[in-house]
Amino acid sequence: MIIDCHGHYTTAPEAHNRWRDDQKAAFKSRSAVPPYPSISNDEIRETVEKHQLRLQRERGADLTLFSPRASAMGHHVGDEAVSRAWTIACNDLIKRVVDLFPQNFAGVCQLPQFPGIPIAHSVHELERCVRELGFVGCNLNPDPSGGHWTSPPLTDRHWYPFFEKMVELDVPAMIHVSSSCNANFHATGAHYINADTTAFMQFIEGDLFRDFPQLTLIIPHGGGAVPYHWGRYRGLADMLKRPQLREHVMRNVYFDTCVYHQPGIDLLFEVIDIENILFGSEMVGAVRGIDPETGHYFDDTKRYIDSLSISAGAKRRVYELNARRVFPRLDALLKAQGR
Amino acid sequence: MIIDCHGHYTTAPEAHNRWRDDQKAAFKSRSAVPPYPSISNDEIRETVEKHQLRLQRERGADLTLFSPRASAMGHHVGDEAVSRAWTIACNDLIKRVVDLFPQNFAGVCQLPQFPGIPIAHSVHELERCVRELGFVGCNLNPDPSGGHWTSPPLTDRHWYPFFEKMVELDVPAMIHVSSSCNANFHATGAHYINADTTAFMQFIEGDLFRDFPQLTLIIPHGGGAVPYHWGRYRGLADMLKRPQLREHVMRNVYFDTCVYHQPGIDLLFEVIDIENILFGSEMVGAVRGIDPETGHYFDDTKRYIDSLSISAGAKRRVYELNARRVFPRLDALLKAQGR
Repeated sequence: MIIDCHGHYTTAPEAHNRWRDDQKAAFKSRSAVPPYPSISNDEIRETVEKHQLRLQRERGADLTLFSPRASAMGHHVGDEAVSRAWTIACNDLIKRVVDLFPQNFAGVCQLPQFPGIPIAHSVHELERCVRELGFVGCNLNPDPSGGHWTSPPLTDRHWYPFFEKMVELDVPAMIHVSSSCNANFHATGAHYINADTTAFMQFIEGDLFRDFPQLTLIIPHGGGAVPYHWGRYRGLADMLKRPQLREHVMRNVYFDTCVYHQPGIDLLFEVIDIENILFGSEMVGAVRGIDPETGHYFDDTKRYIDSLSISAGAKRRVYELNARRVFPRLDALLKAQGR
Repeated sequence: MIIDCHGHYTTAPEAHNRWRDDQKAAFKSRSAVPPYPSISNDEIRETVEKHQLRLQRERGADLTLFSPRASAMGHHVGDEAVSRAWTIACNDLIKRVVDLFPQNFAGVCQLPQFPGIPIAHSVHELERCVRELGFVGCNLNPDPSGGHWTSPPLTDRHWYPFFEKMVELDVPAMIHVSSSCNANFHATGAHYINADTTAFMQFIEGDLFRDFPQLTLIIPHGGGAVPYHWGRYRGLADMLKRPQLREHVMRNVYFDTCVYHQPGIDLLFEVIDIENILFGSEMVGAVRGIDPETGHYFDDTKRYIDSLSISAGAKRRVYELNARRVFPRLDALLKAQGR
């Protein structure tokens, strides 16, 4: 079984996106937000069948951990109420996709974060998504300001109320920023990758996993710059008198395989323990074209993994077993489905 | 001949560092800054002979492009006058090292940047260092705010007066941030690497090298996350309808080899054209320890390159010829020395 741990609903129905525009406009003009539009099951089916489902089939994946479009989370837009209403709408839409295709998708939620607002305010939506909607994980934005980085590091006690709830609910978080409103940072080309790198270094500096030994976090996009600079991070841990990365960070942190060329995937598997790698594609996502050098889609990351000369057992870990371990509620869901 | 394009005077005499503390204290208390201390040639000789010179000898490099300690540039500290006085002191100290060891070092200057101040104010110091002190390059900080990223992207016209002067003087710049005063970003573990990645993505989005076809920029630390995510960047250029990276960016941009483990260096040389790679070690710098997995210093990057199965001609490019091309004033200096 092949589980893609990183997929976004980037192809949501236009009515959903238009409502977001209306919501933003209403916030600006201080007028009432129109009611959320009626979207038919057929519309949802179509947006998914044409894209994510088709690609699952073509590329040979079985199930995608599916979350709202990350770049559209826009936690810095409007105010906390705007973020909350948009988040609920996005998560409810994911729930509908999962209900329509329960064999193909499991839900991962967005959070109603807003810059300067305590993360405790996101606990309720996490609980709703997990307990009521049956979601198995969440995307946590380390920088709800959108590229201004005004929140404390993830290792700060600011974040602890949320981590406590994650541990209680037994769900992991993917550390995932949203769009950037800082002109220095292109969203998918700089802000995403920088956030991944930044989070990892925060984990080296802090003691988050001493305080939360059961906490599980996924750093997407192949861990940002970290595997490429693995020697730097091992050396910095040593210089900063931190324990070795293996025990200090890598008992709790996982990298996905959203690295869009063979040499990058080769490096990832060379330096990172197989237990810490989760198959992911980010599709349909950041890079949608075909690589002229290979003739295949850049984000068809399964091809790169299939090309690795590692054992079938190792591949099964990356494709399935690690995801079942990292997402215990997914494992339970799958078992209930007899898978 | 082996040229290390990336070395900092991280071992400067204590009196120099104490003067910086005095300068900061004077700014805070609005009192007069004490005069810059007298530092003997012997003191300078000792700080260099014990460290950089010894390591050059031990590791087999011939010449280091030497600049003030990057993390100490602290462009966000004080005001523009503080930045300027500190920058002049640092550059003058580099000049003394170069004069004492002209066979071993060539000067690369710091700039008197300050957040919100036009970059044109840095042109004079560049000119002084190149024309009067004989320096061959400069370090340009894309984020003088120290982790708040308040300046426009490097491709913005804001930076053009400086690029014009660089082209006129025929010197390259290394894009190099300083310390971080944003708690999210560890300086050498996150801020440095993020800045490298950010700059590269800015070059993809912008048209800097159409406007400055003669401009030469070096992205240190192996290009940040870029080589690891080379497929993502090729794909993003395609999605954003930009020309191919080879013509759009890589005619003007070089990566150094400050990547502290063999798999990272292997990847760098696999995906980046040999013409775009400059030998660098960042020593004595970010990571000073010995890798327990190899028994050698993390930042002894020459070992990794020596281990590559590439031709002697390719190695010579990375060790010497590319640097002579990228730093034309270095080439002239070396030729005047009969090298």
